[in-house]
Amino acid sequence: MSDSIAKPVSAWRCFGGQVKRFRHRSDVLDCDMTFGVFLPPQAESHPVPALWWLSGLTCTDENFMHKAGAQRLAAQLGLAIVCPDTSPRGTDLPGEHDDWDFGSGAGFYLNATQAPWSQHYQMYDYVTRELPALAEAILPLDGRKSVSGHSMGGHGALVCALREPELWHSVSAFSPICHPSDCPWGIKAFSHYLGEDRNDWAQWDATHLISKLPPERQLPLLIDQGTDDEFLGDQLKPATLEQTCIAHHHPHEINLREGYDHSYYFVASFIDEHLRHHAEALDLIA
Amino acid sequence: MSDSIAKPVSAWRCFGGQVKRFRHRSDVLDCDMTFGVFLPPQAESHPVPALWWLSGLTCTDENFMHKAGAQRLAAQLGLAIVCPDTSPRGTDLPGEHDDWDFGSGAGFYLNATQAPWSQHYQMYDYVTRELPALAEAILPLDGRKSVSGHSMGGHGALVCALREPELWHSVSAFSPICHPSDCPWGIKAFSHYLGEDRNDWAQWDATHLISKLPPERQLPLLIDQGTDDEFLGDQLKPATLEQTCIAHHHPHEINLREGYDHSYYFVASFIDEHLRHHAEALDLIA
Repeated sequence: MSDSIAKPVSAWRCFGGQVKRFRHRSDVLDCDMTFGVFLPPQAESHPVPALWWLSGLTCTDENFMHKAGAQRLAAQLGLAIVCPDTSPRGTDLPGEHDDWDFGSGAGFYLNATQAPWSQHYQMYDYVTRELPALAEAILPLDGRKSVSGHSMGGHGALVCALREPELWHSVSAFSPICHPSDCPWGIKAFSHYLGEDRNDWAQWDATHLISKLPPERQLPLLIDQGTDDEFLGDQLKPATLEQTCIAHHHPHEINLREGYDHSYYFVASFIDEHLRHHAEALDLIA
Repeated sequence: MSDSIAKPVSAWRCFGGQVKRFRHRSDVLDCDMTFGVFLPPQAESHPVPALWWLSGLTCTDENFMHKAGAQRLAAQLGLAIVCPDTSPRGTDLPGEHDDWDFGSGAGFYLNATQAPWSQHYQMYDYVTRELPALAEAILPLDGRKSVSGHSMGGHGALVCALREPELWHSVSAFSPICHPSDCPWGIKAFSHYLGEDRNDWAQWDATHLISKLPPERQLPLLIDQGTDDEFLGDQLKPATLEQTCIAHHHPHEINLREGYDHSYYFVASFIDEHLRHHAEALDLIA
């Protein structure tokens, strides 16, 4: 049954559960896509909630599964993990593969409005609508979702939770791009995907979105950031986000981790704390 | 001081400790080599023992550090982890890079006797003599060592512990090549590295070595093996090793893990049990 909408690519037993990869046709992105999922052992007996993990620049659906070491605790908690890819794939738009920080591997989890990107680069609708519907149709997922991510994916996670908090039980981010309208990575991506009118950028910028959200729609933001991250000052700007949270009374916890950098060694070091944050919001632990 | 014999390449903070990589000139291998190390937080105040991890075919010093998720528990235990590369590098012998299961990335942790391999492929002396001396000279390691590995590196770990048990406090292996004299990978490698006289192969074959070892030199063998490992029947042959252990009263524990394959998802799922096995032998835990 599931083969008709998504084709299993591979499966590995892992901590008593399974890591699986699927290929499927995405109507929203107008291309074929691959995604990964970790199903904990509990999913063999009943549907489970899922943490949606959004990866960073240059990543695919595999980096987190390989490197974060999240499956150990997720298996104990009964928490699935879904990893989408970071951009449309198999397309060949002009300049799409020229830069590591734009185009393929760099979809920024937004809906592009500018040609030629708008035909494929609809990653926000993909990760919040199309892929959840597909994953929940073919896998033992109960529909409850939390969202997290790293770097560009941290931006994605924050934007998801700030645009439509009703879709998510909780949100967290590692080293997120907090204010993409005002950093080189974001300016480059937004100007191509969204055009030059900066008013259109605000709806995809966590720092802007915080200022628009009424208190009853606020989800607490859990953020971890390494102090030795090579992208901290120019690209990530958590201090700007923090000031905005304070000014707008948005609940937040920003942990500055001394000596840590931008790598998955940092993510792995603190992923358990994030998993527990999500597990609490999903009523998996008290 | 350490820069004179090994040059730091990179460092990442990880679970309160550090993952580091070094480049150095290997006299034994007659080439430049890279190795990785995880230093737990305890190493900042006193020297610590180390688990030596030997990786499998096609791997480098990085696979285990990236994928096994071992640093979390190693940081708690106060156990360093040293990851050598899997073959000499930067050489360019005829045919050295043609096959994934022979030559570069496939040194088999032996001392080659046949030209042209014998000039460089002295991986046994490298991982048991030269690199430990270097690592213990430049890093806060106290000289106590245990050894483990995966696949070809599982073979390497067993051979290390069966040839010179006095060098190691404990040994374990994931999915080891248990009887390389009698499997395609081993026959291919041994015939090139050691020549066609099979009497010369026995000293690098765990199953043969078990039968030679007097009881007072035996280290218990801890082995984990997935039942769905695609290489189980043709290449790995743990049943042959087990029969030999029983016949020669060699202490062993071979855990067959239902549904697991040959991947690092399998290693990650059971690495904590192996770390505890080594930590007990190293008196880090009771």
